[in-house]
Amino acid sequence: MNRRMIFYVLCVLLRMEAVCMLPALIIAAVLGERQSAWGFFMAVILCGAVSLLTFLRRPRTQSLTPRDAFLTVAIGWLVASLFGSLPFSISGAVPSFTDSVFETVSGFTTTGASILTDVESMSKSLLYWRSFTHWLGGMGVLVLLLAIMPASRNAGGMHILRAESPGPQVDKLVPRLGNSAKILYIIYIALTALQMILLLAGGMPLFESVTTALGTAGTGGFAVLGDSMASYSPYLQNVVTVFMLIFGVNFNIFYLLMVREFYKVLKSTEIWVYLGLFAASVLLITVNIYPQFHTVGESVQQAAFQVASVMTTTGFATVDFNLWPQFSKMVLLTLMFCGACAGSTGGGIKTARLIIVAKAFRRDLLRMIRPRSVVLVRMDGHSVDEDTIRTTLGFVAAYVLIMGASVLLVALNNFSFETTVTSVVACLNNIGPGFDMVGPMGSFASFSPFSKWVLTADMLIGRLELFPILMLVFPSAYRRW
Amino acid sequence: MNRRMIFYVLCVLLRMEAVCMLPALIIAAVLGERQSAWGFFMAVILCGAVSLLTFLRRPRTQSLTPRDAFLTVAIGWLVASLFGSLPFSISGAVPSFTDSVFETVSGFTTTGASILTDVESMSKSLLYWRSFTHWLGGMGVLVLLLAIMPASRNAGGMHILRAESPGPQVDKLVPRLGNSAKILYIIYIALTALQMILLLAGGMPLFESVTTALGTAGTGGFAVLGDSMASYSPYLQNVVTVFMLIFGVNFNIFYLLMVREFYKVLKSTEIWVYLGLFAASVLLITVNIYPQFHTVGESVQQAAFQVASVMTTTGFATVDFNLWPQFSKMVLLTLMFCGACAGSTGGGIKTARLIIVAKAFRRDLLRMIRPRSVVLVRMDGHSVDEDTIRTTLGFVAAYVLIMGASVLLVALNNFSFETTVTSVVACLNNIGPGFDMVGPMGSFASFSPFSKWVLTADMLIGRLELFPILMLVFPSAYRRW
Repeated sequence: MNRRMIFYVLCVLLRMEAVCMLPALIIAAVLGERQSAWGFFMAVILCGAVSLLTFLRRPRTQSLTPRDAFLTVAIGWLVASLFGSLPFSISGAVPSFTDSVFETVSGFTTTGASILTDVESMSKSLLYWRSFTHWLGGMGVLVLLLAIMPASRNAGGMHILRAESPGPQVDKLVPRLGNSAKILYIIYIALTALQMILLLAGGMPLFESVTTALGTAGTGGFAVLGDSMASYSPYLQNVVTVFMLIFGVNFNIFYLLMVREFYKVLKSTEIWVYLGLFAASVLLITVNIYPQFHTVGESVQQAAFQVASVMTTTGFATVDFNLWPQFSKMVLLTLMFCGACAGSTGGGIKTARLIIVAKAFRRDLLRMIRPRSVVLVRMDGHSVDEDTIRTTLGFVAAYVLIMGASVLLVALNNFSFETTVTSVVACLNNIGPGFDMVGPMGSFASFSPFSKWVLTADMLIGRLELFPILMLVFPSAYRRW
Repeated sequence: MNRRMIFYVLCVLLRMEAVCMLPALIIAAVLGERQSAWGFFMAVILCGAVSLLTFLRRPRTQSLTPRDAFLTVAIGWLVASLFGSLPFSISGAVPSFTDSVFETVSGFTTTGASILTDVESMSKSLLYWRSFTHWLGGMGVLVLLLAIMPASRNAGGMHILRAESPGPQVDKLVPRLGNSAKILYIIYIALTALQMILLLAGGMPLFESVTTALGTAGTGGFAVLGDSMASYSPYLQNVVTVFMLIFGVNFNIFYLLMVREFYKVLKSTEIWVYLGLFAASVLLITVNIYPQFHTVGESVQQAAFQVASVMTTTGFATVDFNLWPQFSKMVLLTLMFCGACAGSTGGGIKTARLIIVAKAFRRDLLRMIRPRSVVLVRMDGHSVDEDTIRTTLGFVAAYVLIMGASVLLVALNNFSFETTVTSVVACLNNIGPGFDMVGPMGSFASFSPFSKWVLTADMLIGRLELFPILMLVFPSAYRRW
């Protein structure tokens, strides 16, 4: 294990985090939020001080084994979250250590689950930092996709980007990613800016436009108003709907659109299933909630916003969908598991994986009927190799096991069945709100510290697609080879 | 497709069912239950008459392809359930067609979910028939294990029996199974009789001893008293606990014990995990429910009964576990999915499959760390082949998808989250009771006919391990080759 290199990378990460906190510090200073300014100032100093330790121990070599890379990612997210929580603790806005870590992990993992019972009483700078962690987390996931995770093995959707990245073998944490990485970041930044402009054009105040755009881009879900998005105009709600959907799309698609490979976009199975699921869910929910809204337009609009929010694992809300009929709630619950496309900033199991599971099951059925037949699982015109299928099925099965174990631990709180189950679903899939007590108008405030730590772990496990975090608790990861 | 042979087998099945109804007819006649006697009389006549159609079209060949075998199994369970429901309908005891089919499928699939709101008002003969369908269903599953399902491919626990059966290729529906089949039935009958004697010895009335033993053997769960087993003495409850556990064990184990292969029993991973899960769950629940029962003995006894009941997918209850703290309920819910051992009469995903899933996930984790390493998944001292692992993972993933789809459909009833989810869990895993409205003291009576049909399908899908029933709705199953 290249301990020095891992340490070096973590220090670099902290230096980046200190820089990222500067805008929040400036906002706090300009608006005269003394407590928050003090929090950010101390956090920047602490991040900076620790990151200077780099000069103490320079790495001899820069090479990282896959195991090292996974450990770096896992520890990196933990370290970033711990230091990112400092402004909340030091400013006194979130006195409990557990709560401030929960809130920050929820931010970086783009979950959006909150322990705040009164969002509007928070200072602007802290609200900005909360939303900015979403945006950073979303970008972190995109870096992961390109640089570290052999994503295509699991998700089957990153063929093109992988072909331009240095290949599945990871030798350095920051490899030369070439044009594709730059393009990815440009798309991410450009789309965020575009949404901000469209929100401003619709009359949303600047501060809210910025935080909303940051939260949407990361598919996060922290809102700055107590009622999330309920008080915004239909235009603003629709803009958010469209951009949530956009950020749930595999970033490959945007890349393909930019290089004018329209044919490949049309052939992508995942995007059609994703849009099909969206359309079907909106239709079903519209019919189901129509009696509550009276007009078709209103019903469609509310259904579309909530479906896009839950499906892309964002978690904004324009209505308390906890009060919807059970069928609509179950459609949303199903979508929570599906999640967005592979290669997006969204969480969940991912549409691509579910397509593979469905196709693999169809094949098992065919094989039972005709044991000697050879059936290939095909996607986007290519056959999916056996290793990918097995890993995908294993992923889904492990996902369910982890969910079961978490539900068991959270049940110790003795909250209702609905609260217990959906709090885990909402955290593991990085959605944010669930139903009942953790519904869109509720919060995670009343959970015990133990439950909050379990849910914090779930957010990280879900965000990093199970393996890196589990590796941390797996003894042979530390063993020398 | 050998249509004539399938038809022939179904007629033989109906003839067997007519014979199986005779004891119930005799009970009805002896006890002077006129309505029920009429119902059984007509059902026997109808079964017999239809089964005589065999003489119309004799099969030219007796060979069945795997597809034919699966179709026969699926249609066989449907036909047996439809004709088995006749006594309920014709006697007028269960006027609704949907309800009587639900109740009979619940019986044959050894589920034990009931639409009856007042069990004790039913006639003795119908109660006997209800419990007897459990016992027949349990035996049917054992036949399946040996004769038709390539169980070892999925479950990894039937090595020994398979070695003595004619091999994985299915050529006839009723192959010469040799000694192992006979031994299996002798064990099943002997254990049922032993339990009956022990119950009688504890002072349970004859009729209740018979129905309880039949229900326990099939891991069914229909009780003849309104409070299930709550009013029985601790001795009787403990006898039932022990026998539920016994019938949840892989029947291989009994075979090995009979031929004195104790070493192989000790080496069976599944039995130790099964007993370990039982012990751990009892311990956790005992601690959790202790405040409700005041004495350790009472807490342990109640915990053991409920854990054994739910884990083996039987579904008897000595207490309304719906009123237990959320943690205990979630332990039970987790056990509902685990289910009993492969090769038992129990339902659920099966302990063997979960072991394979856990081991496969551990391997995926190791492979992520060391991509070039070769890790074999081992069980009972043998390595599990890749095809089994893939099929098992696919099974679990498909199980979850089917559960999700069913929850969605049942949600149209607009019942509570807890009722909706656990009604599907209880039916798909062949448990019987769930929580809330479908708790051990509740019933499925108030569900809409549509939901009842969905749940009926779930019971069959779960019991026949997904494939045969799904094949019925899969067009290429009918296509000529």
